[in-house]
Amino acid sequence: MKIEPLSYYSKRSQNVPTSFVREILKVASDPEIISFAGGLPNPAYFPLIELQKCVQQVFEKQGTKTLQYAATEGFLPLREFIAERYKGLYGLEVSPSQILLTNGSQQGLDLVGKLFIDPGDRVLMERPTYLGALQCFSMFQPVFEEITLEEEGVDPVELSKILVQTQPKLFYCIPNFQNPTGLQYSHKRRQEIAKVLSATSSILVEDDPYGAISFSEELIPPIYKYLPQQTILLGSFSKTVSPGLRVGWILASEEIIRRLAVMKQASDLHSANLSQHLLFQFLKTYNFDNHVAKIRAAYKAQRDVMIESIAAFFPPDVSYTKPKGGMFTWVSLPEKIQARALLERALKEKIIFVPGDSFYVTQPDLQTLRLNFSNVDRERTRQAMKKLGKLILNY
Amino acid sequence: MKIEPLSYYSKRSQNVPTSFVREILKVASDPEIISFAGGLPNPAYFPLIELQKCVQQVFEKQGTKTLQYAATEGFLPLREFIAERYKGLYGLEVSPSQILLTNGSQQGLDLVGKLFIDPGDRVLMERPTYLGALQCFSMFQPVFEEITLEEEGVDPVELSKILVQTQPKLFYCIPNFQNPTGLQYSHKRRQEIAKVLSATSSILVEDDPYGAISFSEELIPPIYKYLPQQTILLGSFSKTVSPGLRVGWILASEEIIRRLAVMKQASDLHSANLSQHLLFQFLKTYNFDNHVAKIRAAYKAQRDVMIESIAAFFPPDVSYTKPKGGMFTWVSLPEKIQARALLERALKEKIIFVPGDSFYVTQPDLQTLRLNFSNVDRERTRQAMKKLGKLILNY
Repeated sequence: MKIEPLSYYSKRSQNVPTSFVREILKVASDPEIISFAGGLPNPAYFPLIELQKCVQQVFEKQGTKTLQYAATEGFLPLREFIAERYKGLYGLEVSPSQILLTNGSQQGLDLVGKLFIDPGDRVLMERPTYLGALQCFSMFQPVFEEITLEEEGVDPVELSKILVQTQPKLFYCIPNFQNPTGLQYSHKRRQEIAKVLSATSSILVEDDPYGAISFSEELIPPIYKYLPQQTILLGSFSKTVSPGLRVGWILASEEIIRRLAVMKQASDLHSANLSQHLLFQFLKTYNFDNHVAKIRAAYKAQRDVMIESIAAFFPPDVSYTKPKGGMFTWVSLPEKIQARALLERALKEKIIFVPGDSFYVTQPDLQTLRLNFSNVDRERTRQAMKKLGKLILNY
Repeated sequence: MKIEPLSYYSKRSQNVPTSFVREILKVASDPEIISFAGGLPNPAYFPLIELQKCVQQVFEKQGTKTLQYAATEGFLPLREFIAERYKGLYGLEVSPSQILLTNGSQQGLDLVGKLFIDPGDRVLMERPTYLGALQCFSMFQPVFEEITLEEEGVDPVELSKILVQTQPKLFYCIPNFQNPTGLQYSHKRRQEIAKVLSATSSILVEDDPYGAISFSEELIPPIYKYLPQQTILLGSFSKTVSPGLRVGWILASEEIIRRLAVMKQASDLHSANLSQHLLFQFLKTYNFDNHVAKIRAAYKAQRDVMIESIAAFFPPDVSYTKPKGGMFTWVSLPEKIQARALLERALKEKIIFVPGDSFYVTQPDLQTLRLNFSNVDRERTRQAMKKLGKLILNY
C-alpha cells in the first residue's frame, strides 16, 4: 500500500483541535484524583431506580417497536413533550414538527455544521467558547471569528459591528451558564441581540444544555423567543436526566428541521429507540420539575462551597465568576501564573482542572482555568480549593 | 431576515440525493399495503423476551455507569466480543483497539466520509449500490465512479483498470448479499480484489451488515482478511439482533480507528450506553449463533417462497437474482416496462417495492426493481408475487 499517511486523510480531519480535556480525563481514572476537569453530571442524582422501573414498562408497552427501525425525526410523543414544555415555560408556540431528536446536543452541532457550513464560511464564536463546538464545526472548515463574552452576554454594539464586517453564517452562543465561564446572558441583552441579528442574515445557534440547572427562580426566555425564524435552539436531557442515554434535540423552523432531518438520515438513520422511549416513559411517569429541583438544589450547594472556598483560600488578585446555574466557574489567575503550569503542581496534589487555553479560537488567555463543581462533594471541594489556593499563594 | 433560502444552505446539503425509498415507506404506513419496499428485519425474530430480561441485569450490574458519559470508542466488553468473533469465525487477529462502536453502520459511513473525503476526491461505488451510502458520501462532495457488479462480485481486471484511471480514495462495496441486488462475492474474487487493491493506494470500505444472514453453511471470509491494513470493515447488529438499538462497528487498523474516534467524538461524543450494555448482556447470556440460525432459517424460507413464486408467476423474460442470504432480490423487467410505471399499477393492488433507479450513480437502469423478502410472511408473499406477475404479463 502506498498511502502517505497525513496527506491521505481529509483536510477537514486534520483541522480538528485535540481535546486537552479528554487527555486530562484519561489521567482522572486514578480514583484518588479529585477532578474538577470534566463536565460530568453528578451520578448521585441520576434517577436510576425510576428508570429501571420505566424500562420494563417500555418493553411491555412498545414491544418490538423499540427494537425496529424508526423515524429519523425521533419518537413523536417525546417531541410533543418537548414542544409542550417550551409552551409551558415561555409561552412559545412550538409544533413537534419543529423538533428533531439527536444523539445528545453534540450531534445537533454536527447536523447544523453539515447543513450550513461550506469551507471558508465565517462562524462567530464567543470568546471563550465550548471546545466541543470548536471541534465539531472545525470539521466543516469555516473561518472562526470571535466576540468577547462579558458578564451579561456579548455586547450588542460590538456584535452588530462584527456581523456587518464579517457576515458570519452562524453565531454560536451558550446564553445559560456557559461552558466554560458559567455566565448567563441577561434578559435585556437577549432582546438586544435578537434585534441586532434580525437586521442580518446570520443564523443564531443557541446552545442550551444547562438552562434547566438554574439556581434562581428567575426564568429568562431563550433568544429564540425573540428571533424564531432565524434561531436554531439546541437542548439536551444530558444534564437533567442522563448523558449516557444520548438524547438531545434541535428546535428550529419546520423548513430547517426538514433539512436537518435529511442530514441526520444520511448520518445515522435515527437515534436509539430505547433511550427515547425510556426517557419519555420517565417524563410521563414522574414529575420532571421536581426531579430537576433536586439537581438544582444540590449543584447550588456545591457551587456555594466552591465559591466560598475560593473567596476564603485564593489570593485577592484571583478573579472568578459566580455562576447562577450550570456546572462551571471560570478563574483568572494573576499574570505571573499560567494555568498549565499550575495544573502540573496541582496534579502532584492529586487535583485536576482544565486550563482555559483550550477554549479560545485564537490568542488564548493562558491565565484562565475552568472548575467543574457538579461532580465533587462539598467537603472534598473545600479541601481541594484550600490546597489549590495554597499553590497559587506560594507560586 | 435576509436569507435567500437555497444559496444559504451548504453546497454539501444540496448534494444529497433524496430517498425514494423513504417516500414509499411513508405510503406504506397504510396497514393494508403489502410492502416489499423497506429493508426492515422481521420483528417476529427480535429477541424481545430475552432483551427484556437482560435490561434488568444491565441496570443491576452497571448501575449509574449506564447513565453517565462514556468512552467515545464504545463499551470495551462489547468491542472485545466483536474482536473475538472475528477470530472464531475467520481466524483473524483483531484487537479491541481496532474496533469503534457506531450508531448503526450508517454512522460508520459518515465517519469514514469525514476522515477521508475532501471535495472532488474520487469514490468508487458498485453499480448498483446502497442508496444510504450514496446519500452519506454525497455530503462530502466526492466525484463518484462506478463499477458494474456481476454475479460473483466486481471484475478484478475491470477494477484494476478503473483504480489506475481514476485513483479513487475509497472503493465501497457490500460483498455479502448486497443491497440492492442480493449478490455475494465469491471467495476467489475476494482474494483477487484484495490483490488488485494492494497495488494501489485506494482504501477498501467493506460494508457487511448482512454477512451473518447466510442461507448456506459456506463461510466466506471478508476481503479484510486479505488486505487488513487497507480495509475498513463495517459491521452491524441491526439485522441479527435489533436495528432500533443502533449498534454497529468499524474494524480497521489502530491508526485509522484512532482517527475515526476523533471524528466520532466531534460528531456525538459517544453512542447510547444502554443499547451497548444491553446488547453485550444479551450476547453474554444467550447463544448468538443459535439466535442467528433461527433468522437464517426463517429468511431462507421466505426467500424460497419469493423465488419460487417469481419463477411460477412472472413471465420468462423477467430475470432476477437468487440470493444466498440477506434480505433482497433484484428483478430486471422486459425493456418495455419501467419499474416506476409498474409501481403505480402495483400500488393500486396495494403492493409496493423500490424501483431500481435510486441505486445508481448515473444512467439508472429503469427496468430494475428491488424486492425485500424478510418482512412479509410466506402466504402473503406468494399472493403478492402472483398479482405482480399478472401486472407484468398484462402490461
